[in-house]
Amino acid sequence: MEKQKVLINGERLKNTVEEFADFGRTENNGVTRLALSEIDLKVRKHFKSECEKLGMTVVWDDMANMYATLQGIDEDALPVVMGSHLDSVERGGRFDGVLGVLTGLEVVRTLVEHDIKPQVPIVVANITNEEGARFEPAMMCSGVLSGWFDKSTMLQVADPNGMTFGEALKNSGFEGKEENRLTNAQAFLELHIEQGPVLESESLQIGVVEGVVGMVNYEIEVTGDSDHAGTTPMPMRKDALFAANNLITEIREKMNKLDDRLVYTMGRINVSPNIHTVIPNKVVFTLEARHQEAETLRQVEEIVEGLTDSAGKEACEVKTIKQWDRITVWFDEQLVNTVEQSAKSMGYSYKRMVSGAGHDAQFISTYIPTAMLFIPSINGKSHAEDELTPWEDCENGVNVILQTVLGLAVE
Amino acid sequence: MEKQKVLINGERLKNTVEEFADFGRTENNGVTRLALSEIDLKVRKHFKSECEKLGMTVVWDDMANMYATLQGIDEDALPVVMGSHLDSVERGGRFDGVLGVLTGLEVVRTLVEHDIKPQVPIVVANITNEEGARFEPAMMCSGVLSGWFDKSTMLQVADPNGMTFGEALKNSGFEGKEENRLTNAQAFLELHIEQGPVLESESLQIGVVEGVVGMVNYEIEVTGDSDHAGTTPMPMRKDALFAANNLITEIREKMNKLDDRLVYTMGRINVSPNIHTVIPNKVVFTLEARHQEAETLRQVEEIVEGLTDSAGKEACEVKTIKQWDRITVWFDEQLVNTVEQSAKSMGYSYKRMVSGAGHDAQFISTYIPTAMLFIPSINGKSHAEDELTPWEDCENGVNVILQTVLGLAVE
Repeated sequence: MEKQKVLINGERLKNTVEEFADFGRTENNGVTRLALSEIDLKVRKHFKSECEKLGMTVVWDDMANMYATLQGIDEDALPVVMGSHLDSVERGGRFDGVLGVLTGLEVVRTLVEHDIKPQVPIVVANITNEEGARFEPAMMCSGVLSGWFDKSTMLQVADPNGMTFGEALKNSGFEGKEENRLTNAQAFLELHIEQGPVLESESLQIGVVEGVVGMVNYEIEVTGDSDHAGTTPMPMRKDALFAANNLITEIREKMNKLDDRLVYTMGRINVSPNIHTVIPNKVVFTLEARHQEAETLRQVEEIVEGLTDSAGKEACEVKTIKQWDRITVWFDEQLVNTVEQSAKSMGYSYKRMVSGAGHDAQFISTYIPTAMLFIPSINGKSHAEDELTPWEDCENGVNVILQTVLGLAVE
Repeated sequence: MEKQKVLINGERLKNTVEEFADFGRTENNGVTRLALSEIDLKVRKHFKSECEKLGMTVVWDDMANMYATLQGIDEDALPVVMGSHLDSVERGGRFDGVLGVLTGLEVVRTLVEHDIKPQVPIVVANITNEEGARFEPAMMCSGVLSGWFDKSTMLQVADPNGMTFGEALKNSGFEGKEENRLTNAQAFLELHIEQGPVLESESLQIGVVEGVVGMVNYEIEVTGDSDHAGTTPMPMRKDALFAANNLITEIREKMNKLDDRLVYTMGRINVSPNIHTVIPNKVVFTLEARHQEAETLRQVEEIVEGLTDSAGKEACEVKTIKQWDRITVWFDEQLVNTVEQSAKSMGYSYKRMVSGAGHDAQFISTYIPTAMLFIPSINGKSHAEDELTPWEDCENGVNVILQTVLGLAVE
């Protein structure tokens, strides 16, 4: 069989992406489809019906994760799974998550259309609440599948209106049996937009994702004294903002000497009392840093935890509070190589890279061989209505997944 | 007459300060007495009744400024005025403002007690809404007296509950005639706590205030791009916080090279979107700087307005928006010398200094010869419940004012 000749239908893929974007489309051509919201339930039913048209069986588990299965010749073999998430953030884009689910749908449509009977079952998965935009944390349900999060704790998480995840689950019509959970497979494949500018800026078509970078998160609290801005001579001040300014400069200088691949951000800063005629007595700011190597993250921690002294000049107190960290997750080396070969066989330009953002795949990879594929995000935008990936890139990505599935499941 | 032998009654002064602090005293021994609030109206009535007990006549003008007059031998002579304000900020202290009014009361009590008939009328003034804590701006009613603020605009200013100053005035029972305004006098004398740490740190008893420093106020707006903290490599970011950090460092470096007496503060900083995993796309911060010399403030403006380029490294846009400025107000040189002589005659340690904070005296000085006197603030604290000036320092200050009044009004 000439597997390499089978290709997906790019026009159909495009139409399907736009069709799914109609569920929650915003006036600026983005999407709002919060997990288990009314519109999310509608898109789930639509997804189910599209899968059933292909002869797939659709079930869901106790966390509302959906699995559409195309029977294999060997019914009891471990399946090949493709999946991602149909939920979005508030005013998100048309590609983030949904594209990974529709990849599965398009691959199965292509198999069916070409009358290709896979050797093993093919599963398309929609994992619930990846974004954590309505119910925190992000990647909640893949976290429960992998045992990282405790189910009963997650059921108690409430949305801003006070409805718990457990209640939303009960009302959804998608609370299934625990026995339906994805517990084993020969591969989990997730296509996702990059959500960063690297592929576009390097004019590459495909990112073969080797893993998801580890990170550390700190809160840094600087305490000074709130005095009158007009009457307190400079040398007699304990200005928490000046101390924070020194610290941020020091962090940047030291971090910039570490590896080029390190990214770090001070995203949140709160100043008290935040009045223009009063010297700030407190500044609290966050620091998050991400890198694939544990040694680099250790150096980051060393820098942050050594900060106290440097603020001495402003006579302020500095407290560094580590919030949480996570280690780098490396995907299955063999599966990553397989995906890379598929990209190569299609003649696409690509690079191996790590993901700076979190994805369901990182939790699932703890118990199923997993790999991810990135395609370019224009201007690196995501979680925004102007999130955009050219249709040709979408088509390319799904073709790489198709070739991988053909290699794994059809022989 | 042996004027130097006449002294005020320190015990009586202390008791009166505590008695007035009972109007709005907080559980932490501070005071909340917002302008024209119920408790402010009560303390005004109490002040009126205490003045009337001394044979003074009490009137108020169209801005509710109160004037208690002790008749002079020459009824038509220009009066000597002592005054300040009875209103406070939310959870303020027992000394700020009220002490300048009670100085007048204690001086008159001393005159009456010693049966000293002044040559000219002695007026004790309570100026409405100096703090601007309920109705902005600060120094509202001395501003109207001096023609700096427009009365009809001020009447429209609303408090946080939506009540306008004009309504509060109508309801107060203290809306008097415009013809009662303070329009001329031979001197206006204001005793005030320093609200800064200088006198205490130099172990001085008295500050002879030569004027109120000028200031400039800016808002600086930095605009970058909000990208994902995990997926955007450092060189591809437009991090508004990093740019703001550079600017703050540059401002500090350049400002520190100007005169030692310059004070400057970045009191308010707001970061958007202020989420720890998102690169900030906007930072807005304030800068205020105060100095007695116009040339130094001009240099400050030059520094701030030259900021644009330096942020180029972060590829952000910088906008500096001048909010307002005010020039340094110099008090009446002759009256300042007189006050200095009074301090000297009492044998107190003192220094000539400028005020970093604004006071009613600065507006009144535009049309009446004016001088101010400072006494120490422990730890420089004010606008706080732990605002404190030792009783002995209060007594010293009022004695200096008494000697000055004796010199001006009794011969």
